[in-house]
Amino acid sequence: MALPLRTSFKHLSRFIQKLNSPKRLLCAETCAENKDPPGGRRVFSGIQPTGVPHLGNYLGALENWVALQNEYPLVLYSIVDLHSITQPQDPAQLRSNILDMAASLLACGIDPERAILFQQSQVSEHAELSWILGCLTTMPRLRHLPQWKIKSKQKNEGSVGLFTYPVLQAADILLYKSTHVPVGEDQVQHLELALDIARSFNNRYGKTFPEPATLLSTTRKVKSLRDPTSKMSKSDPQTLATISITDSPDDIALKIRRAVTDFTSKVTYDPETRPGVSNLVMIHAAMAMISTEEAVLQARGMDTGEYKKLVTEAVVQRLTPIREEIERLRKDQAHLEGVLTQGTHKARELAAPVLREVRQRVGFS
Amino acid sequence: MALPLRTSFKHLSRFIQKLNSPKRLLCAETCAENKDPPGGRRVFSGIQPTGVPHLGNYLGALENWVALQNEYPLVLYSIVDLHSITQPQDPAQLRSNILDMAASLLACGIDPERAILFQQSQVSEHAELSWILGCLTTMPRLRHLPQWKIKSKQKNEGSVGLFTYPVLQAADILLYKSTHVPVGEDQVQHLELALDIARSFNNRYGKTFPEPATLLSTTRKVKSLRDPTSKMSKSDPQTLATISITDSPDDIALKIRRAVTDFTSKVTYDPETRPGVSNLVMIHAAMAMISTEEAVLQARGMDTGEYKKLVTEAVVQRLTPIREEIERLRKDQAHLEGVLTQGTHKARELAAPVLREVRQRVGFS
Repeated sequence: MALPLRTSFKHLSRFIQKLNSPKRLLCAETCAENKDPPGGRRVFSGIQPTGVPHLGNYLGALENWVALQNEYPLVLYSIVDLHSITQPQDPAQLRSNILDMAASLLACGIDPERAILFQQSQVSEHAELSWILGCLTTMPRLRHLPQWKIKSKQKNEGSVGLFTYPVLQAADILLYKSTHVPVGEDQVQHLELALDIARSFNNRYGKTFPEPATLLSTTRKVKSLRDPTSKMSKSDPQTLATISITDSPDDIALKIRRAVTDFTSKVTYDPETRPGVSNLVMIHAAMAMISTEEAVLQARGMDTGEYKKLVTEAVVQRLTPIREEIERLRKDQAHLEGVLTQGTHKARELAAPVLREVRQRVGFS
Repeated sequence: MALPLRTSFKHLSRFIQKLNSPKRLLCAETCAENKDPPGGRRVFSGIQPTGVPHLGNYLGALENWVALQNEYPLVLYSIVDLHSITQPQDPAQLRSNILDMAASLLACGIDPERAILFQQSQVSEHAELSWILGCLTTMPRLRHLPQWKIKSKQKNEGSVGLFTYPVLQAADILLYKSTHVPVGEDQVQHLELALDIARSFNNRYGKTFPEPATLLSTTRKVKSLRDPTSKMSKSDPQTLATISITDSPDDIALKIRRAVTDFTSKVTYDPETRPGVSNLVMIHAAMAMISTEEAVLQARGMDTGEYKKLVTEAVVQRLTPIREEIERLRKDQAHLEGVLTQGTHKARELAAPVLREVRQRVGFS
């Protein structure tokens, strides 16, 4: 099922081709042995259905996803709805967020002919493998993960799902015998858990899973426009802090105009001492596909007020075709559901034989 | 697929018909509302694949299972292999134990035309529902369950699977919208958890699950023949303590002859002050399908030594056709696998629409 891209999307395709440069991804040490594993190189990554992504998601993860689908022979991207319910969710909102996330991923350039795009909950094998792997994982191993420490403190304990979700993440990855996993820095310890679990399983039942390598994206972290010391986040209570990829040009202009900088009017790139203006330089460079040095050069002679217009222009130019494509896809729910169903079938075709093998090794069949 | 029963099995069928008396089961209070629920009355129970059951399993649970298949329109019995791996298992032994348990259940009178007999791990929906229900269960709720307290102490913590298995039990039951669940006393608190989880789900997402009622079997607990103050158990290190349902007549005679009684030679039934001889009276009564009063009457004029021969005779007479049928079924692995596969199909047919409904209510689809 080919995704009919609009003509206004053509210049985005050119950007996507530029994105294919392997420079953008750093592979962790374990890469060496995953160069040509028996099942071929397989990438898995997941994203929670939070609705339409923001600029931080786009530059931090989705741009890389688009690049990876052209670099690896097999790539799976999952909308991980089973993970999303570790926090309370309104069912109607969740459904709408799943479809919005699917529309956004397609609009950002995920091509369902190159990448398997699917909804986690439609492939029951994830949960079954998670159960089996949970029987190989000790309680203290999970309790010492920093994410649990932070989240359970915030919520005065939290649910069993919140506690065990790193095991489900391990199952997500191992179910496809994935060899490479793009993750953010905050997830590195969860990938280490997946690695430990893969080793435990292989030691006890015989070599089954490759040890997945981390693909750390180059550290391009978009900061809040209102507080450049913290990450851009969807849940930020300050509405001007976060740019959604569906924001209108006017909203984008307003948010960037109000972005916190400092009392120096010259534009320089120095994230340590000048986080606000450096965040804008980074956004500008990323959206215009240029280096931060080139972005600073282009700002020569401008004060930060003038420079913000240049940044706005770069963001609007890049996001407009994406926003228009999301709007178009949102009107075609049947198409979105069709893409996800097709992805589910492909994912199950890969998952079923792996789970069959696991069941045999464990002694179930 | 009809199970070809041997002619030697005929007299067992007569016993089974006697077993159908509803007196043998006590229904907990919640029964009232489950008399005629929309989906009809549905019984679910599970047994771990420990291999061939012993006399305690047979009298404590399996006899009831046989009775229930004739009393309820829909009955599911699951060999819960996903639960078994919460403790380390040797894969080849586990596989063989699963088939032995299937053979034993059939030989004890479970009729695959009346009851759906299946292997839990073959129906991935169990694990997926368990994940969803785990997101509605708090950590302290599980931590306070007495079974976890005991088991985790024995094992210095234990695995995530051992901690979360009561949630999987809840999923096992709710996946079929079961209305009645036969359980032993040690599982009553786990059934309460299932009830709580059903209520939480119904409150949050709308009425979906009936609240399952407990079917407490009459308290017929077979004790160890070597220490009549503790339960008969497969893991008892004293080999003479436990009668397997496949024990030869000679082994049965030896074990009963060596059974611990006391210094009074008269046979009476008084479990409090004379646990040893009362255990034998109970076994005799249960195996001969008579009351304990009648068993004591039959023992009139005998000392415990003579009485043990009478008990042996009753046990051998009842177990011989079962042992022979198990031996026959063990030789026909393809038949056993066929019965389980047929059960899996039937179980999935019931599970799939329930999981579909759950996914919709949660907002996944």
